[in-house]
This record gives sequence, structure tokens and C-alpha cells, in this order.
Amino acid sequence: MNKQIPVAVLGANGSVGQRFISLLGDHPLFKVVALTASDRSIGKKYKDACRWILSEKMPAWAEEIVLTPSDVNSINGAQICFSALPASEAYDIEPALAKAGIVVCSNASSYRREIDVPLLLPEVNGEHIGLITQQQRNHGWQGAILTNPNCTSTGLTVALKALDDSFGVKKVMAVSLQALSGAGYPGIPSLDVIDNVIPNINGEEEKVEWEPLKMLGKITDNGIKMADIQISAHTNRVAVIDGHTVCVNVELAENPTIEAVNLSFLNYRGPKIAQNLPSTPDPVIDVRYESDRPQPKLDRFTGKGMSTVVGRVRKDTILTLKFVVLSHNTIRGAAGGSIYNAELFLSQGFLK
Amino acid sequence: MNKQIPVAVLGANGSVGQRFISLLGDHPLFKVVALTASDRSIGKKYKDACRWILSEKMPAWAEEIVLTPSDVNSINGAQICFSALPASEAYDIEPALAKAGIVVCSNASSYRREIDVPLLLPEVNGEHIGLITQQQRNHGWQGAILTNPNCTSTGLTVALKALDDSFGVKKVMAVSLQALSGAGYPGIPSLDVIDNVIPNINGEEEKVEWEPLKMLGKITDNGIKMADIQISAHTNRVAVIDGHTVCVNVELAENPTIEAVNLSFLNYRGPKIAQNLPSTPDPVIDVRYESDRPQPKLDRFTGKGMSTVVGRVRKDTILTLKFVVLSHNTIRGAAGGSIYNAELFLSQGFLK
Amino acid sequence: MNKQIPVAVLGANGSVGQRFISLLGDHPLFKVVALTASDRSIGKKYKDACRWILSEKMPAWAEEIVLTPSDVNSINGAQICFSALPASEAYDIEPALAKAGIVVCSNASSYRREIDVPLLLPEVNGEHIGLITQQQRNHGWQGAILTNPNCTSTGLTVALKALDDSFGVKKVMAVSLQALSGAGYPGIPSLDVIDNVIPNINGEEEKVEWEPLKMLGKITDNGIKMADIQISAHTNRVAVIDGHTVCVNVELAENPTIEAVNLSFLNYRGPKIAQNLPSTPDPVIDVRYESDRPQPKLDRFTGKGMSTVVGRVRKDTILTLKFVVLSHNTIRGAAGGSIYNAELFLSQGFLK
Amino acid sequence: MNKQIPVAVLGANGSVGQRFISLLGDHPLFKVVALTASDRSIGKKYKDACRWILSEKMPAWAEEIVLTPSDVNSINGAQICFSALPASEAYDIEPALAKAGIVVCSNASSYRREIDVPLLLPEVNGEHIGLITQQQRNHGWQGAILTNPNCTSTGLTVALKALDDSFGVKKVMAVSLQALSGAGYPGIPSLDVIDNVIPNINGEEEKVEWEPLKMLGKITDNGIKMADIQISAHTNRVAVIDGHTVCVNVELAENPTIEAVNLSFLNYRGPKIAQNLPSTPDPVIDVRYESDRPQPKLDRFTGKGMSTVVGRVRKDTILTLKFVVLSHNTIRGAAGGSIYNAELFLSQGFLK
Repeated sequence: MNKQIPVAVLGANGSVGQRFISLLGDHPLFKVVALTASDRSIGKKYKDACRWILSEKMPAWAEEIVLTPSDVNSINGAQICFSALPASEAYDIEPALAKAGIVVCSNASSYRREIDVPLLLPEVNGEHIGLITQQQRNHGWQGAILTNPNCTSTGLTVALKALDDSFGVKKVMAVSLQALSGAGYPGIPSLDVIDNVIPNINGEEEKVEWEPLKMLGKITDNGIKMADIQISAHTNRVAVIDGHTVCVNVELAENPTIEAVNLSFLNYRGPKIAQNLPSTPDPVIDVRYESDRPQPKLDRFTGKGMSTVVGRVRKDTILTLKFVVLSHNTIRGAAGGSIYNAELFLSQGFLK
Repeated sequence: MNKQIPVAVLGANGSVGQRFISLLGDHPLFKVVALTASDRSIGKKYKDACRWILSEKMPAWAEEIVLTPSDVNSINGAQICFSALPASEAYDIEPALAKAGIVVCSNASSYRREIDVPLLLPEVNGEHIGLITQQQRNHGWQGAILTNPNCTSTGLTVALKALDDSFGVKKVMAVSLQALSGAGYPGIPSLDVIDNVIPNINGEEEKVEWEPLKMLGKITDNGIKMADIQISAHTNRVAVIDGHTVCVNVELAENPTIEAVNLSFLNYRGPKIAQNLPSTPDPVIDVRYESDRPQPKLDRFTGKGMSTVVGRVRKDTILTLKFVVLSHNTIRGAAGGSIYNAELFLSQGFLK
Repeated sequence: MNKQIPVAVLGANGSVGQRFISLLGDHPLFKVVALTASDRSIGKKYKDACRWILSEKMPAWAEEIVLTPSDVNSINGAQICFSALPASEAYDIEPALAKAGIVVCSNASSYRREIDVPLLLPEVNGEHIGLITQQQRNHGWQGAILTNPNCTSTGLTVALKALDDSFGVKKVMAVSLQALSGAGYPGIPSLDVIDNVIPNINGEEEKVEWEPLKMLGKITDNGIKMADIQISAHTNRVAVIDGHTVCVNVELAENPTIEAVNLSFLNYRGPKIAQNLPSTPDPVIDVRYESDRPQPKLDRFTGKGMSTVVGRVRKDTILTLKFVVLSHNTIRGAAGGSIYNAELFLSQGFLK
Repeated sequence: MNKQIPVAVLGANGSVGQRFISLLGDHPLFKVVALTASDRSIGKKYKDACRWILSEKMPAWAEEIVLTPSDVNSINGAQICFSALPASEAYDIEPALAKAGIVVCSNASSYRREIDVPLLLPEVNGEHIGLITQQQRNHGWQGAILTNPNCTSTGLTVALKALDDSFGVKKVMAVSLQALSGAGYPGIPSLDVIDNVIPNINGEEEKVEWEPLKMLGKITDNGIKMADIQISAHTNRVAVIDGHTVCVNVELAENPTIEAVNLSFLNYRGPKIAQNLPSTPDPVIDVRYESDRPQPKLDRFTGKGMSTVVGRVRKDTILTLKFVVLSHNTIRGAAGGSIYNAELFLSQGFLK
């Protein structure tokens, strides 16, 4: 692993694109060789085209990179493309790259529901990486498309997986309080959200109700057998910069003690193949015992923003349990998740 | 009704006390004759003792009133006391006043659970005012204690009542996104809530899970027979100034269409005896049909802050329905609610 | 004045357009007969085309009005047009309307610097309305263009006028903390301003340094003789919804006591011709004596949002005085100001 | 320098105390051996007594430390005490410690104005450390008191020093937009500052108008000869978590070009003795050339929060120049500044 793999960031100007650049700067396995953007930015230096919004500075190595189009001839030999493209653009670009032999690790929702596209949280369903074999055979591709789920599904699914392994999950009610960065930039107007709550996010509830079922499902010779779980969601936007909070009620097959539940979270490690990668969360799940945690401002950077943080685990009078889950939506829930997926892909010998 | 009843506001300096003063200035039935406060403010003019935090100006009539203690000899002949006292102070002061012949309309939680104390939302359970007869007989009082519920229970219970009348409510899951003014002043430190969510409010979940059961119950000769409904709550504090939002899932005895549900909200009027009072909400329930409403910033002043606003009514895959409820926590959920209770008390001829 | 004048609101969908509609609903002199919008909204009902963002509800009378283009044939006989158009559109539309006999009361900056266009704050320079005679003669118009200043210039200029009348103003240093609504809708992205200050507003400092000089100038037979005052400004955007705060240092020709300065503010009435109009601020200037006022949240609605609020008047060691000025940027500083201008125009018999 | 000096943090529970703990964890020269607190926390473990509010986690090494009183017998042999005490407590405690041979690096304002107490920003006036000799002689102390300035004075003074060295500063007008963490915890109530500006901070303007004069003065055999500069300040609180922004106008003895001014900032290094310490800011001053920078959210962590960031340098029509200065108020402006002072003290051989 001495030699770093050349990678590109597609859609480098946006909020997720920026997070990719922030995270990839000193990555042990990957070296950024290209940044792509939409037409009006092509040909400009990254420092001139990008309205940088992260509190850490734009890395010096990225400043002078000249933005290129998102096609195979413009990405400077990158073998992996991290895609922060809007779903509408991803729809055409991602399969074209896969066909051309490139591995696309995508944040876009365009292909998450395809039967042979893994929807991956390595610490949850790392073994779903095996779908790549089906995908490459089905399409005759050398490359591949890997996707990571919606940012609200992410923390929720990690927590559900720990519970499902120990006690069996049957029903889930989830109410999210989601951060502004999840809407991208410029995203939510300040006049809409200061002193306010927006009690809906377009298309989000469908994703939260469906994506975990695929991730908690079993890989078969012909795609994923969906988990037999029912999920019902409310999604809300609140005046938080980063970090999605989800209030969860679950019905389990068993009725464990609170202590047993907290232990199941703390001891959860995920599949072996996902345990020792550079981006493996440490801890995978953190449990807070205070009465008012997790909180986005205080807990979103747990495990460098890759951990799922659970708290307020208590009995529910209607279903079995209730608790609160937090995860960092642009790190674990977006750019960091894609990078973790690429690491898994690489470690499994899929990169030719 | 030509002559206005003399009234006092107990705990006039706090955020609910201020809202009482803002609402009582031009009330047709009541005239404020005394404002009370804790020791260090007694003897000061209201304008000098109170750190006014409402965006409407402190009314000129209140500025020069000298603050007095909360006892029967210091309230200048008031027949009704609106109590914005902390629960610990209310515990001793409110029954002492009732014993002395005063009617106490209280926001404090101290006596809400007493068998003969009505927990009142007139548009929900106006007939519970009849408990006053039991209360006065039990204690030998000429006066009385009336309570209004916790601010989060308020809007939720109004919506549940409309559903219960039409379709029968069996189970309720409620997740609140509560405003800062609900914590009083100084209340929540800014460093705790800007760019943050606090996923717990001490004691609030118990109130939200219990109070609606009493209000939706039936009055008997010996207190209230509690409603046979199960409620499970998560309560959260968010960076909103006024207006509590609640995401609700309900299981009903029937399975009505969305149209039927919306109509049940729109057509709900509440008991006749509560319909034509000065503070009767108009409408009792407003229904918003947009995909992202109600919102606290835009909808909290519906019906001068007395209406309950419902939106996003849709089918639930686990229980029967899900929707969002909003109400103004310091108007309908506190000061305005107490005043409405006093109006009901008066209209029923209880004031001697 | 029995009969109301028919008026139109140009650019009715934006934040200033909405404020016009909110203020004009029960105006004694004006009746809205048309609302205009840009191409993609034309033909739609106002309630369907407008994303309403004010906390008061959209008035019922406006909901069903069908949006039309901003030309003389589409405004349903309106004699006065209140313009909330972007400067680029105002540039062509406003003179075309004036040429067609319409009176345009404009918030746009396009014509503020024209020699024969009054830049009006009636309580400051009501007599500048006389420029209309020069304007109509110069252009051969029956109609006219009246402008109101930039929202930050507004409160500052009212305060300076009171000081100038009493003590002579020579130099002014102004640092603004401006509200989000001043940037229109969608305006400032939430990710840019929560937990942040933006220390510049494009083009704003030039306006704040120039506009007061015209308004504090003298009308001559050939335009306005600019006031001999130097102004230097910093403009900042802060996380406030409505209400611009300005920290001011001034050098005066005299060295009055603080009491004399406060009295000069309190006693300031402005020109007689502007004193008894429906929108005349009451008070014209309010003075707060607390150590931490004015504050936008608490003071922006003084005089229904039309008053200028001054506080913290104290000696300055470098210039003569320092103080803080607040005014409501979308009421006094935009829509309310335009309406006040139209009232003055009408009262002076200019409307044929 | 192999052996670390044992140090204590006085007032460890507060917001500045927490920042000390966050910064001292892996300091090359200092090792924390004691944390002190007020009476009701004494005897408790830090993790149980402290309401931690920083987004980085409480360091594991601090969690188990048992809080002690702030006296010489309770600080476990610490040679340096970093004081985050309130001014009223610092008044008695700090000289008692100095008398007992301890070096106190204080954030409190209690002794900043003493003739023989250095008010230190090492990169500005490192040579003022020489006052320690006078102080120890005057009081017969083995220990010493070193102070760092008010958080708003800090960034302003660094910028003024660079200008003064190059062009001579004569007059300064400063308007601050200060962060919430400057008021400590719980500090500013959320209801006071969301959707608001508070246009005053008690006692702050006096500090901003006086402290820079001492720091920009010359050390003599008998204290500091104050700089001959006039400063006038407005101070405001805004809804920002960390990072004070100051809008500055200055009159200089010369009239340099903007380029020359920017170079004077960029090339400023400060006294040699302060240039190579562990906390020396790198860069000392950063210059931003964008039209809307510095911004607290984006620039407060420049140089790990120790740099002063300047932007928008432009000509002023009344004084000579105007610009914007930003610095991190709890790092450079408080805990980080005290640590830098201690490093200077140590490097100059004052620690016996």
C-alpha cells in the first residue's frame, strides 16, 4: 500500500465536495489528482471558483488545481471518483465513468435503489460489497458504482444494526432534527430557519423509510433481500449547522434491559472486513449516559465525525425502546462515508 | 358584564407574567389591580423591577404599579389571581389564596394532578370546570384553583380531542421541538442552543404522557376518569423563540381518509360553553395544506396565538396517521390559556 | 379624501413587496388594484405564486389577485405604483410608467442620484417633494418618480437631521449591524450567517456615505445642494431578522450637553407638511435611556415600525458624540417609507 | 526543557477554564497538576462538577482530577497558576499566590491597571515582561502576576501595533461585534440574543479605550509610559459563538498606500523574545483580501486560534484608514494568551 491511488472529486465546489477535500488531504491510500465542476467553473483554479464554507482552511494543495469536467478524459488518470454531484447530473455521469473502468463512490441518490448497486455503511453491511461482482457482470463494467445512504439514514441504520443483531428489530419510528449543511449550499435561506423549524424535507422521509431496509437486508445471488422491518419517519430542518439528531422508538423481538441495550451499542463492531480501515469509526457507536445528550454541537465530532452517538436509551410504553441518535451528516453521512466505502472496496481487492 | 373584575398577576416579572400583562391590558372582563413578585422586587415599580423581553412595549398602565407580595392582603381586592409562579412557590401560595376566597388560574404544575382540580383547555374539556364544586366542597373553600396544562400538552391535546371525537384515539407518539420561551427567563443559555438541539427537557415527557389523559377523560362525581389512551413522548429544545412544534403519530379506532381527518380538525368547535368567550380561539384548529407547514415563525400567531395549527396529515405505516401540531406556548400554552379558563369560570357563574 | 386612490405594487412577490401588501390592506387613502411580478409568475394568483414569509398572514384580499406585468396597460388603472422592483428592472420600467402619467414611489436605487428625483424621508426633507415640478418639466411627464433611501441610510438620516437642525453636523462615522431581510428573499444563506458576521454588504457603504448628503441638502431651482458633511461607513450583516442597528460617532459645530442632545431628538418633529399624514411616525424619534437599548428585537416596532429609535447618547473623545440608532428596515426603511412618500405627494396636490 | 513545569488552572469550570484545559493537554512545557473551583464544586471530580461546553471532548486526563480551593496549599505544587477567576475573587487570591512564590497568569481585569503589572501580548509588548522585576521588588514577592488584556482589546492591539511601528497611530475608532463566549457560561440568555443585537457590554468600552494605550506604551524604570493615542469604542454583543470582530478607523501620522498597509500587517513579527515560543501565532497577522472577510465562522481558527486576522483595508475619508480585525476571544483573547505569557515568562528565566 505504499503507492497512493489517484482519485478525483466530482462536484468539488459544493458543501460535500469541500468536505471530501478537507478529508482527503492526508489520506494514507488516496491522492487527489483532479477536481471537477459544472460548466461555469471549468478552467478556473479551485481557490477562485469555490466559495469555501468550512471553518478549517481550504488546503493549500487544492487551491491551484484547475477544475475540469466530470468525464473520464478530464480526470487526470483518477481510478476512483468521489461523487458529490447532484442526483440529476449523477444519473448520466456515474455509469459512464463505471463503464470506462472508474470506481465511483457516490453520495447521489440516483442509483441507491438498483438491485446490483451496494448501498453501503461498511460497519453495517460491509459484505454487501459483494454486489459489485453482480454489477460488473450485469453491465460488463470494469469499473463500479458504490453508494452511501442519505445522511439521516446513516446514524439511524448503524444504531438499528446493533439492536437487530442482539434483539431483532421489527418496527421503527424516527423523527429527525436535521442540520442545514444537509441541504447543501446556498441551501436553506436564513429567513426561513432562524427562529423557526421547517417540518418537512422533500423526499427525505421516503429515503429514511426505505434505505435502512436495504442495508439491513441479506445479500443473495440476485441482489439484496430486504429486511422485514417497518419504518415510519418525520423529517424536520432546524437551525443547526452540522449534525443530524434522530428521536427513535423501536419495537424489538425481545425485551432487553436498558443495560443490555447500552452494552449492545457499546460492543457493536460491525463486520470484520470493515474493522481496520483508515476511516473505521472509533468507537463505532458511542453511548452517552447524561440526560441531555447527544447534542449536535457537543457530540458531532466524536470519532472525528465518523462515530454514531446514542443516548437517552429508555423503555417505551408503546413500542419497546426509545432513544436518540446523532451523526455528523457531512462526514459520516456523506464524504467520510464515501471514503470509507472506497477503502473497503480497495481492501477487498476489487480495484484492478 | 359592564363592570370589570379586579384581577392580579402573580409572578409578574417572568416571561409568562409579562405575557399576562400584555394580554390583559384591554380585556373586556378583567382589570389588573395588582402585580406580585418575589422579595427583592417588592416595593419597586414594575417598570423598574421587570426586565421586559416581549417585542410589544410594556403597557403604560403597568409601568407605575408597585409590586407586592403574593398574599391575600397585598393584592388590592383582586378576585381572580393569574399565577405565573414557579411550582415551588405556587405549592403554598395558591391554596392559601383559594382558602381566602380568591380564584387562582394557575400555570404552575403543582396541583394539576389533584383529583378535584380541573386541568382545563376550555375548547377540549370545558365541562371539567364542574370539578370546582367538588373542590370547594372538599376543602370548604369559597375560592378555587384552576390549572392549565403544560405548554406542549396544550396543542397536542386539542388536536387529539378532535380526532378522538371523530375516530377514537388509542395510541399516541409525540416528538416535540420546543421553543426557548417555554424555559422562562433567563432560561436557556445562548451557548447551549445556538447551532444546537437539546434532546431533553426535565420532567416534560412525563407531563406530555399524563396530562392529555386527564383532559381527555370524563368528569365523574369523584374526579376525572382518565382516558384509555397510551402516549409516548420525546421532548427537545430548539433555537426557536416562541411556538412549540410536535410531530405526532396516532393509532385510531377507525381508519379514516385524510380528507375526513382534515375535516374533523376544521370542523372541531369544542363544548358549547367554551365557544363564545373573549379568548375562544378562532379558528379552534387551523389546517395547513402546504407540504412544509405549520412553522413556528409563520403560524404561531394564528388566531392571535390561541389557535392550534395542524398540518402534514398523512397515513402512517405503523400506527394510523401522522401529522404536525403547532401552538404558541406562552399564549395558548400559558397566559392566554389561563385567561380563557377564567372567562369560562366566570361565564358559568362560579364567581361569587 | 373619501375616495381611495387605486394603487399597484410592482414586484409583489419579494420581501419588500410582501411588506407593502401587509401595510396597504387598510390604508385610508390607497386601494390596491394590481400586483405585478416577473414573467414566471404572471397569470398566477398571488397566493399561488408568492412564498409568503411574514409572520402576519397574507391578507385575504390579496390572495386571489392575479399577477400581471409591470406596464401601464396591466395595472388596472392604478394611479400610483409602489415599486419593490430590483434596480435592474426598475431602470426601464419606472420612467416608462412616469411618462405614462403614473406616480412611481420606488425602493429601487436606480434613480436616487438623479438631479430632479427627490430622495425622500418626509420627516427629514419633505420640502424636497418640490423637485417633482422640475422633474415633470424636464421630462415632459405627467407622472413622476419619487424614491426612498437605502434602509441603512434611513434611520441614520432622521437622527442626523435632528442633530443638524440643533447643533450642526460636520462629520459622521457609522458602523451598521444589518438585518437579513434587507437582503431580500432568499437572500443570505443560513450557512453564511448562523454563528457568524459578514463584514460587508456590496454597494451599501457608498449609499450610506452619499444618500444622507442629498437628503440633508437644500432644494434649489436646479436640484439639491448637497449638505457639507463627511460620512464614513462600515456595513455588516448579522443574524437578525428585521431591524438595522447603527453605531454612530458625529462631530458637531457645537458641543451640547447630553440632555440637550436627547431633547433635540425627542422634540424633533420634521417639516409641517409631513406631520399629519397617515404614516407619520409617532414619535418621529424615540429615545431610550437604558444602557443597552435600542435592540432590534425589542424596539423595531416602535411607532408601528415607522419611528427612529436612538439610545446610548454619550460624549465622544474623538468627535463630539456617540450613540446608537435603530430603525425597521422593511417598514420605515422600505415599504412604509414609500407609502409615506406617496401620502406626502398626494397631500401636496401633485396627483392630477 | 525536558521537565514540564507543574501548573494549575484556577476557576477550571468556566468557559475560559475549559479552554485552558483544552489547550494545556499536550503542552510541551506545562503539566496540569491541579484544577480549582468555587466552594460547591470542591471535592468533586472535574467530570462530575463541570458542565463542559466545548465541541472537543473533555480530555481524559482531566476527568478524574478532584477540584480543590484556589490557595497555595491546595494546588499540588503548581509553580504557575492560570487564572480564569472572576475579577472579584481574583482580587484577593492572585496576590496571595504571588506572595507565596507562585506565578499567576491571569485573565481577570483586577490588576491590569497596576503600575508594575505587565498587561501582555507577547507579540506586541513582550519587553513589558521586565515590569516583573519592578513588581517583585515593590512587593517583596518571589512570585508574580502577569495579565493578559480584555478579549476585544487583544486583536485590536495587535493590529494597531503593526500600524504604529510602520506609520504611527494617532486616533482609533473601534466598533466591536462580540461573541457570546466572551460573557462566560451561562452568560447571555438565548432569549436576549437570537434575532437580536445587544448594543452594550458593561465596562467593555472603558477597557478597549484604555488597555491598548498601556500595551502600546514604553516600559520605564517606573512602570509604563502610556502611548499617546486616543481611542473611542462602541461594543456590541451578537449571536456568534466564538470570535470577536472589530470595525476600525484609524488616523495615522503618515498616509501610506493600501499595499503598504497590508504589507505592514503581513510582515509584522513582534519582539524577538516572543517569536519562537510554543504559542507564538503563525502567522502573527493574517491578511484576507476578499471583500467580505474576516468572518468569525471561517477565520477564527487561523493559526490555531492565536493569529489576528485583518481584512477590508481601505482609505477612510475622515481618519486615514479603515479595516476589520478578528481574533478568537477565548483562545488568543483569553486562555491561549495567558499560556503564551507564561511561555515568555519562562523563556526569560524569571521562573526560579
